[in-house]
Amino acid sequence: MRKGARIPLEIVARLVVRIAIDAMGGDHAPVSEVRGAVLAARSWAIDVVLVGDEIRIRAELTRLGAERHPHISVVHASQAVTMSDPPGQVFRQKRDSSLRVAFELAAQNQVQAVVSAGNSGAILSHALFVLGRLPGLERPAILTELPTETGTLVLCDAGANTEVKPAMLAQFAVLGSCYDSIEYGRDRPRVALLSNGTEPEKGTELTRAADPLLRHASDDPMARFRYVGYIEASHLFDGSIDVVATDGYTGNIVLKLAEGLADAMVRMVHTRLSSTVRGRIGGVLLRPLLRDLKQQVDYAETGGALLAGVREVVTICHGRSDAIAIKNAIKQAARFVRCDLVSRLGEAIARHAQAWQDESGSAARA
Amino acid sequence: MRKGARIPLEIVARLVVRIAIDAMGGDHAPVSEVRGAVLAARSWAIDVVLVGDEIRIRAELTRLGAERHPHISVVHASQAVTMSDPPGQVFRQKRDSSLRVAFELAAQNQVQAVVSAGNSGAILSHALFVLGRLPGLERPAILTELPTETGTLVLCDAGANTEVKPAMLAQFAVLGSCYDSIEYGRDRPRVALLSNGTEPEKGTELTRAADPLLRHASDDPMARFRYVGYIEASHLFDGSIDVVATDGYTGNIVLKLAEGLADAMVRMVHTRLSSTVRGRIGGVLLRPLLRDLKQQVDYAETGGALLAGVREVVTICHGRSDAIAIKNAIKQAARFVRCDLVSRLGEAIARHAQAWQDESGSAARA
Repeated sequence: MRKGARIPLEIVARLVVRIAIDAMGGDHAPVSEVRGAVLAARSWAIDVVLVGDEIRIRAELTRLGAERHPHISVVHASQAVTMSDPPGQVFRQKRDSSLRVAFELAAQNQVQAVVSAGNSGAILSHALFVLGRLPGLERPAILTELPTETGTLVLCDAGANTEVKPAMLAQFAVLGSCYDSIEYGRDRPRVALLSNGTEPEKGTELTRAADPLLRHASDDPMARFRYVGYIEASHLFDGSIDVVATDGYTGNIVLKLAEGLADAMVRMVHTRLSSTVRGRIGGVLLRPLLRDLKQQVDYAETGGALLAGVREVVTICHGRSDAIAIKNAIKQAARFVRCDLVSRLGEAIARHAQAWQDESGSAARA
Repeated sequence: MRKGARIPLEIVARLVVRIAIDAMGGDHAPVSEVRGAVLAARSWAIDVVLVGDEIRIRAELTRLGAERHPHISVVHASQAVTMSDPPGQVFRQKRDSSLRVAFELAAQNQVQAVVSAGNSGAILSHALFVLGRLPGLERPAILTELPTETGTLVLCDAGANTEVKPAMLAQFAVLGSCYDSIEYGRDRPRVALLSNGTEPEKGTELTRAADPLLRHASDDPMARFRYVGYIEASHLFDGSIDVVATDGYTGNIVLKLAEGLADAMVRMVHTRLSSTVRGRIGGVLLRPLLRDLKQQVDYAETGGALLAGVREVVTICHGRSDAIAIKNAIKQAARFVRCDLVSRLGEAIARHAQAWQDESGSAARA
């Protein structure tokens, strides 16, 4: 546990975490989900509840020799949300989807987390309708991690909200820095707003309005983060900051661009390597390094992204996640449950909501 | 010349292109600018006019043994625009800046192009005030090129406009595809709108409104490009499209992110390489490849970005441009002049303005 963490008895008692897996969401469903769940259940003290087409799930479990595993259970759902289902309406249209059933299990406290590789807009709408937001939070946001030269950068919002108000952007920063403190133990993570230049007149109306909100929050002596101003995208990977806040549209572009460029560069290196003898020799020597580098930036391998700001742990995985990615996402979700991440995010939001109320109160009186 | 290019006599006659260099704009001014200009003048049939602090420019020319070069001249300007000058006001505030004087030379037809490594917002405002926009164009935009697995991708707008209307976005696509045809000889470049997903409900209000405009323009049998819909950032580098249109804020993020990530990956490879003997041997063999790869994505090395849509060729260079980058930008600007790029961009805009007028006319009547 991180230093300073309080450990409520009910958490300690829940040594075995129960996690619902939407088995029907991803590109390779239910095979990747079932295999990933089996790997997780065999490796760690995690109960997995596979939700979806029971016949197909049990068939895959049997193929893996796991049909009677004590930590794996199956809950049937007759429908599945597809990538083309409209996120807002599918909640009502498919009342027995694997996604909805998984969320209902969480709402009833039968599981402590939900993992899905499905339609992220639908995951968001289901989370909002079934679980609800943390008190004081305008909108939940997707948190993801990017590798940097010195370690890791937390990005928020990586895609949940395209229309964003300044107060939301400030809350994304709060969510991201709380997450960073818990995952990486940093006392006062350095937080920046993504912009197209560091000069004050740069950015958009949104960033220019969010900037003073974050300065004020950071200046508070009780603040748990340090706001360092704007950052340009060219400096995101140099290790100068720990958390970057941006609107979900831009954040999603950043995330997808980083994935696509890293992939393309590794392929370009491979292509160039194989075209000369010198290159091929060098390539053999470099194979472990290239593999490591690819893994570092292969987001499907590292697990999933947290949907931060709803009342239970929800992890969103890439549609193309294989069994390893699902396994890692389950492990990650279990860790989030054990360190009480959701309550701590709630406290961080409440703390800053209070500080901003004080600020607008004195601004109104001034 | 590209196939199908018309060659007006006045272009052929202007075998020596004259280019004004703002010698005071970049981080290493005037040294990089002067050195780059000398390299260009010594390599090709280009007249360079260095604009700025005459004493410092001539001192550097003397250091290079180029103080009497027949193709290098100097025009004095007593002021320089800095990175902190407000772009909108500096035009009036510094009437004798090197940037303004360089643009006035272009307006008076004493040069056919302007190259500057200075404050890009100021370059934009000076270009608008002194040269003006092409007829029918809402706003000029910055065109830049990104390397892909199969060649090159043209990106527009890479940073001129943060507040963008749908018709502007469509015009960015027209500018980009015209440029692509001229530079790469592609008959009907594949154009996409950058978005956070390919489904119709994805994107923002802006992209959803621009989509039908581009479909209509592309469906026209006389269209010079092929609109292929939305593209996600993860697919930008796979060679599936030739031109991507986006608002200037997002485009700038994309450009800076690509630069920063490529840099960081090359450094990460270097770092990992030097930490093992195996790595170091592999590194020696790979040195040429890594150097090539770095150059491919090092935008400062490839020249500059075109400010498309003003009435003369204007090339914007990175502030950190060294002499090689300046030299390449000058060469690039000369090429744009020789192939009459500005007129051809103007024709492309006019052609599509007509098509859209017809569309809104019939929409109004329907």
